Amino acid sequence: MARTAQVGYRQGNSETGRTDRPDVRLTVPEVAVPDAPSIAQHTYPNGLVLIAEAMPGVQSAAFTLLLPAGAAYEAADRGGAASMLSEWITRGAGERDSRELLSALDNLGVNHGESAQTLHTSIAAATLGRNLIPALELFADIVLRPHLDDEEIEPIRALALQNLRSLEDDPGTKVIYELRRRHFPDPWGRPAPGTPEGVSALSPDELRAFHTLAYRPNGAILGVAGAIDWPVLREAVGRLFGGWEPRLEPVVQERPTGPLRDHILRETQQIQIALAYPTATVASPDYYRARAAAAILGGYSSARLFTEVREKRGLCYSVYASYESQRDRAAILCYAGTSADRAQQTLDVTLAEVERLGSSGVELEELETMRAGLKSSLVMAQESSMSRSGSLASDWFHLGRVRSIGEISSALDALTPESVSDYAASQAANDLTILTLGPNALDLPKQDA
Amino acid sequence: MARTAQVGYRQGNSETGRTDRPDVRLTVPEVAVPDAPSIAQHTYPNGLVLIAEAMPGVQSAAFTLLLPAGAAYEAADRGGAASMLSEWITRGAGERDSRELLSALDNLGVNHGESAQTLHTSIAAATLGRNLIPALELFADIVLRPHLDDEEIEPIRALALQNLRSLEDDPGTKVIYELRRRHFPDPWGRPAPGTPEGVSALSPDELRAFHTLAYRPNGAILGVAGAIDWPVLREAVGRLFGGWEPRLEPVVQERPTGPLRDHILRETQQIQIALAYPTATVASPDYYRARAAAAILGGYSSARLFTEVREKRGLCYSVYASYESQRDRAAILCYAGTSADRAQQTLDVTLAEVERLGSSGVELEELETMRAGLKSSLVMAQESSMSRSGSLASDWFHLGRVRSIGEISSALDALTPESVSDYAASQAANDLTILTLGPNALDLPKQDA
Repeated sequence: MARTAQVGYRQGNSETGRTDRPDVRLTVPEVAVPDAPSIAQHTYPNGLVLIAEAMPGVQSAAFTLLLPAGAAYEAADRGGAASMLSEWITRGAGERDSRELLSALDNLGVNHGESAQTLHTSIAAATLGRNLIPALELFADIVLRPHLDDEEIEPIRALALQNLRSLEDDPGTKVIYELRRRHFPDPWGRPAPGTPEGVSALSPDELRAFHTLAYRPNGAILGVAGAIDWPVLREAVGRLFGGWEPRLEPVVQERPTGPLRDHILRETQQIQIALAYPTATVASPDYYRARAAAAILGGYSSARLFTEVREKRGLCYSVYASYESQRDRAAILCYAGTSADRAQQTLDVTLAEVERLGSSGVELEELETMRAGLKSSLVMAQESSMSRSGSLASDWFHLGRVRSIGEISSALDALTPESVSDYAASQAANDLTILTLGPNALDLPKQDA
Repeated sequence: MARTAQVGYRQGNSETGRTDRPDVRLTVPEVAVPDAPSIAQHTYPNGLVLIAEAMPGVQSAAFTLLLPAGAAYEAADRGGAASMLSEWITRGAGERDSRELLSALDNLGVNHGESAQTLHTSIAAATLGRNLIPALELFADIVLRPHLDDEEIEPIRALALQNLRSLEDDPGTKVIYELRRRHFPDPWGRPAPGTPEGVSALSPDELRAFHTLAYRPNGAILGVAGAIDWPVLREAVGRLFGGWEPRLEPVVQERPTGPLRDHILRETQQIQIALAYPTATVASPDYYRARAAAAILGGYSSARLFTEVREKRGLCYSVYASYESQRDRAAILCYAGTSADRAQQTLDVTLAEVERLGSSGVELEELETMRAGLKSSLVMAQESSMSRSGSLASDWFHLGRVRSIGEISSALDALTPESVSDYAASQAANDLTILTLGPNALDLPKQDA
């Protein structure tokens, strides 16, 4: 039984609640990042942030470009625009048609992915260090000069509809999408795949308008890590992206969502159980306490949910808790998938563990375990240029700076059982959103429980 | 639309057809691996092979232990034994009970996974270099001295049954398992999750007997990569695993399987299409030609299947071809998942591309693209200690040695459009196994087509 997917520390996605940066950014002097001399940062006149780390002994180079063009910025009845656009931009750009563009990327050995999330469109790519600048040249075309030809729209629409249908065959993923939709105020919980109605309705002109407004340098962050030459990189990014025009930030109207208790009827073999409750954001002074609490609840293989649900009772194969932060809101998510006859007990045990974390706090031994695992994971993630480029962009998004491993280690070392227990007790675990999916509903606790 | 999973080079699993090593291995002098001075190898008197690579500038260390204890060695009516055992061994070992053992691993910051595959049980772990030897001490207990207590069996059986049921909600994975079962002669296509009947029937004594016979040092390979000290590692592995008693190799009776054309009826939203045909193994002189052909067919984002099925026609979201090798047999697998109204066309286009590869060969441009991508992927995989430890073990299994990047690059450089085209023409693409899964069957070509 493969268990890799269930162990290790789950990192929440690096999504944001809101882009509260100024509309048009003036040049900011370069920042020397303390305690991480290999990291350099530059903000271009149009607002684009470049943050890069040279990794010694590494031949690859990777980048992650976060664009403020997630599903949250779509029109409410046009769900799927960000996703469709992330596909459309690769169908020809600059002087290359669709096939020439993909071939050019493949010829540089670029492993790449373009995807929309709730708050960003993310473009991530890795290749050999010597191919980094040629790859960035191709992606400058993709971001700034995509052809967006009408004739490509119907195949892309068909793919987007296929993708929505395939979610129906993947209930574990679907339940988490639908949990976020109910837990976060709209539009901050919108699933990036969109809706069948939105995807069916979107016109080429609407998608082009979305590109014009949302693919903007102010609010975009380019993280680069690996075999890089900082002066060359800074100059190249300026040359390639310096002419990109800033745009006004969209004004977003938040709306409450819910319901906080819900069941989605599906004739699946298993029942999917998902729940969420609010916790501290990455920028919060309580961040490390929140992460510690989430990890002790269900972030590694001797964590509480794993022990109580899986090891002791064999109730289900897959169970975990994860921490997920946007910029203005964050949540602890719990997930379990099990058979109908074990689902109620699985839910009850999971809820009891969430409750016990708040009421009884954590032990020193658990804290030490959490610390060892999180530090180890940090070091290992640091060794991958792709993972590192994502962390640079994500840290900058959440904090406007990059945390060094030393800083994170010190913050973890400063945690005590009392500080984490106090924080866990203060978390509003009664603000639970609970969603199940499967052939029959379960008994859920009342909302005021 | 996230595309990362569809791009990049797909590496087949590193499974074997047969363990044709001598029963009990005598000490072999240490091998100096040419062109890779940082790689060292040692074979212990009991047959265990250690192969390790020091990676400069890396703080992590990872290992992959391949045990000749895959599902292929289970009794035919006891499918699931290897999987259940890979879970049971972690439920207490040496002087630690189940919880103490998982806590000890978590306290060392070890990210680990134990899983059964068709031909191996694989134990993979990564941690900081300074924790490598303490982690290996724990895994020596897990492999050699698991408690295998009766009381843990029912939760493990329940998990194994859950896992089988969850496959019913994951038709894309299921169709590939069932394709292998029909394509490879039994037992070399057996799915590691087993069968509901096998999992229900397995007794603790049967599982203990499987442990005694199949967890053996002759046929086991331990690959280690990262921040390592070779003399210390070699001594520690000898101390920890030297007392492990070799066992006789099992005699395996091969049986033909099939059917070569089949449909699995399921009320899914999408129709899953999977097909396989034989190709050259890793050890074959034709290996690089086979890999090139598979990659050009569907291994990267401008590859033929991707272009014809996804980009031009928008027939489905996910389509690929992958290369998969055991020791005595290998296959090219193609997969597509799509809706009922597009399934027949998707299958027809896929089959036409398989046919065209054999009849019309490949272009120089495609070969260059394949080469650039494969080389880039190799370098990037080399930078992860976990991935590298797996490659070391896998290379040793297939070849009895480790290929350097230089060797692989030279072999790729030596390919020409003619050599790959000639090989593609000789591949028996009419020995196709075709399997579909969904609410309705498709028109399949006849077996002698």
